[in-house]
Amino acid sequence: MTDWALWADQTPAVPRRLRTLLEGELGPLSAPPPPVAVSEAVVRRSALDGETVGALRRAVAPGELHDDDERRARHAGGHAYADLIRRRSGDTAEAPDAVAVPIDDAGVRRVLATCAEVGVAVVPWGGGTSVVGGLSPLTGGHRGVVALDLSHFTGLVDVDETSLLATFRAGTRTPDAEAALGARGLTIGHFPQSFERASLGGYVVTRSAGQASTGYGRFDDLVVGLRMQTPIGELDLAPVAGSAAGPDLRRLVMGSEGAFGVVTEVTVRVRPLPAERRYEAWMLPSWAAGLDAFRAIAQHGPRPDIARLSDLDETRVSLAMSSAGALTRRGLSSYLRARGVADGCLVILGFEGAADDVRARRRGVRRLVRSAGGVSLGQRPGEAWRHGRYAGPRLRDALLGAGVLAETLETAATWTALPGLYAAVGAALRSALPEAVVGCHVSHVYPTGASLYFTVLAAAEPGSEMQQWSNAKRAVNDAIVRAGGTVTHHHAVGTAHRDHLAAEVGDVGLVMLRAVRAAVDPAGILNPEKLLPPG
Amino acid sequence: MTDWALWADQTPAVPRRLRTLLEGELGPLSAPPPPVAVSEAVVRRSALDGETVGALRRAVAPGELHDDDERRARHAGGHAYADLIRRRSGDTAEAPDAVAVPIDDAGVRRVLATCAEVGVAVVPWGGGTSVVGGLSPLTGGHRGVVALDLSHFTGLVDVDETSLLATFRAGTRTPDAEAALGARGLTIGHFPQSFERASLGGYVVTRSAGQASTGYGRFDDLVVGLRMQTPIGELDLAPVAGSAAGPDLRRLVMGSEGAFGVVTEVTVRVRPLPAERRYEAWMLPSWAAGLDAFRAIAQHGPRPDIARLSDLDETRVSLAMSSAGALTRRGLSSYLRARGVADGCLVILGFEGAADDVRARRRGVRRLVRSAGGVSLGQRPGEAWRHGRYAGPRLRDALLGAGVLAETLETAATWTALPGLYAAVGAALRSALPEAVVGCHVSHVYPTGASLYFTVLAAAEPGSEMQQWSNAKRAVNDAIVRAGGTVTHHHAVGTAHRDHLAAEVGDVGLVMLRAVRAAVDPAGILNPEKLLPPG
Repeated sequence: MTDWALWADQTPAVPRRLRTLLEGELGPLSAPPPPVAVSEAVVRRSALDGETVGALRRAVAPGELHDDDERRARHAGGHAYADLIRRRSGDTAEAPDAVAVPIDDAGVRRVLATCAEVGVAVVPWGGGTSVVGGLSPLTGGHRGVVALDLSHFTGLVDVDETSLLATFRAGTRTPDAEAALGARGLTIGHFPQSFERASLGGYVVTRSAGQASTGYGRFDDLVVGLRMQTPIGELDLAPVAGSAAGPDLRRLVMGSEGAFGVVTEVTVRVRPLPAERRYEAWMLPSWAAGLDAFRAIAQHGPRPDIARLSDLDETRVSLAMSSAGALTRRGLSSYLRARGVADGCLVILGFEGAADDVRARRRGVRRLVRSAGGVSLGQRPGEAWRHGRYAGPRLRDALLGAGVLAETLETAATWTALPGLYAAVGAALRSALPEAVVGCHVSHVYPTGASLYFTVLAAAEPGSEMQQWSNAKRAVNDAIVRAGGTVTHHHAVGTAHRDHLAAEVGDVGLVMLRAVRAAVDPAGILNPEKLLPPG
Repeated sequence: MTDWALWADQTPAVPRRLRTLLEGELGPLSAPPPPVAVSEAVVRRSALDGETVGALRRAVAPGELHDDDERRARHAGGHAYADLIRRRSGDTAEAPDAVAVPIDDAGVRRVLATCAEVGVAVVPWGGGTSVVGGLSPLTGGHRGVVALDLSHFTGLVDVDETSLLATFRAGTRTPDAEAALGARGLTIGHFPQSFERASLGGYVVTRSAGQASTGYGRFDDLVVGLRMQTPIGELDLAPVAGSAAGPDLRRLVMGSEGAFGVVTEVTVRVRPLPAERRYEAWMLPSWAAGLDAFRAIAQHGPRPDIARLSDLDETRVSLAMSSAGALTRRGLSSYLRARGVADGCLVILGFEGAADDVRARRRGVRRLVRSAGGVSLGQRPGEAWRHGRYAGPRLRDALLGAGVLAETLETAATWTALPGLYAAVGAALRSALPEAVVGCHVSHVYPTGASLYFTVLAAAEPGSEMQQWSNAKRAVNDAIVRAGGTVTHHHAVGTAHRDHLAAEVGDVGLVMLRAVRAAVDPAGILNPEKLLPPG
């Protein structure tokens, strides 16, 4: 790979066993042309005139307004399949016209004021990892678009160890946040697959959920205060333990995807670093048995911090890819057959906390899983999962380089609606991509329901990759709506789900969201064409 | 008492021991004139002309539009001190001009449409228990005001036992909801002091917290779906387990206090009825030791479902009122002195759940309380508290009848800010009402902070009761804002906290809320002059 991909330096080849499996299912793979280097990317001419560029330059600190091609190309989208395909081909025509990198709140406000005045759209830019089109440089009918890069908004502002709160500037990336907290024996406990790159502010505006959110809670539940800059001024919501002082506006900022303002600071709940971490794998006899067991765990507890249940197909792929040798895999196979879970569903459970807490919860959960017919695979596969938990994006880069369409999507529903939702999404994917390998796992559980996380691998159609996926995605969105699911459990709306938002919030819901936007952003410059469908 | 008070049939006299204590502290009490019967209340002439009344009559089912004096008088406010004083004196001049009692969603929409058309304000009316002025018949400059009574919106609509969800019509009162669920072995677990009268929809729009919300969660956290009628149409948000599909509009409806629409249906999370309930009392050596212990419990668990810590003054009053005989009380006194907690702080802990869960949590919490110097008082006082948990409103009626100003207020803050907030509110109250008996307890704990619930008892100033309290209340609100607390933890904004909302959400926050309101209610008829300060 070139330095195009965010993880270019670490991009592996497609593991041999996965390649063999995919070629067995999808037929021979034909690699696309090698990706175009960022320095050769085609970037359209900036739509901004000299006067506007000058005004933007004055809005930020010296040297913090960039309009060179490479910087613009690097801000030409996020990490959706379409973004990656476009970048590989060197097509970054729709790059932002400039990249502004303010150093403080006042700088953000000046950029917003300038853009509102001259009619230029603003795409707030944190970690750059949106997989739903949230970073696409769309103009919304304005004369141009500026990426507002939050790279200077980093670092821990304050820790309140008594109240277990930590305040960060919103562009802080999670490894840095965890390092700063770890030095004080604390953690946020938010570990999405984008952990290495995503910013805390990004988690706020996309309503992120991490791999351990079954235990630590969604990011929605961790945010207790925040600051957001809007074209009409600052919204500063102080940390509060519990309140009935009107609707909780923190919750209105969460999920606003840059359409209401630019979040510059966030205060989150923190916890003591866990003294103990235990990850383990199990095999359950069937998907239905797994759903029942997970529901029992979620509703009656105790709960693990991480709970993942793979369906038959995902389990098959996971086992095929397992790093154990072929002999061991044959041995595992016989063992599972002998225990009656030969065609079973893989479970990953993770427990983090004080030693006695982990022990007590683990005992309760294991009892439940065992009574559902579960067979323990021990800690090794659990630790292997933990070790590779952030590898997905790198593996995807490798797959794209081998001619594979590789994409994921997630939804959620009540326990009652979940089996129907699972069937409907699977059917939609298999109908749109008949040869695809489709795997799914339950990624988060709640007392009222759970999320489903699908992974799709198919032979990419050279030259029409984006159309191939967007057709499938539209079919899936339609199926989700019909089956009573939400079109996104933790990736946000962006452009990928925008046209299905009305199905969730209705016309009145859209009116409410548009009203907020119009009030704080009268010029309509904030991340246009995302979140809200054109009205 | 007359049939004026909501709980008239059950209103007790002031218990003898409390009367003695109060007369000792406040001097001799002089009872005000007996309350005026509702049938003799003075109600101003209806401002609605015959045509408007006719239109409203056509909007509802036959016989469901009322403009008789008694019905209007009964809808002339809620249960704030000012409301009670006004009613006792027979002053209901500001009663609504009519009371509409629609039977279905379409009826609600017709009432809203009619009122929007003719310019009449609408006060949504559930259980009638607002203590913040949320039910005052304010016109907002319109020609009149109609109370929209939800008494016909009762009953369980649906139970999903698999997903542990129950859907109710929003006017359902909590005892009825719990009875319907109890028959299926389920409970919501929401037990505010207004339990007997308040409606589920009221809990939604006021962001209620109940006595057991430390365990079961605030009502905010129990609501997973809802339906609201607005002047521009219906907002119908289906139950969802977890979602990132834009800002969670359920959270925008929660706390909207009837200013965005009329909630007509709500879906809440339910749980199995607890097999075991254990309530117990402890004495901790000091307020500071109590706060430390409660913080440790909230942050590191395990947690009780109910956790209350009274300060020295509230403890003193509680002990003086204890139903044990004088000898026993003297015995208790010696016991507490011998154990070093003579001037201690009373703690109530409640545990509800499966037997082994209660046992495990109770063991952990007791260990913590004991290591903080706690002395167990056993289950009897815990059960006595539980038995009397809804007696507050009745006792208040009795106190008012004896010439006592009796009011409560609540706030919350982070653990760090809590001691300063406690001192500031106490000082404000004692400064405004120098002779008052002021007690306080921690009523809810969170990992990040806790709530403080103050009770004030003072000699009422005959003829200027309302001014006397409103002066004190204003001083308290100012003190709360300065000390970094929220002006309301679970009673909502109404008129009582409206002028302090800007201190919490700022100008931009107010702009956002006003924008939503203007969009769904262009005529501005919905519960005007509440929640939002005049802008």
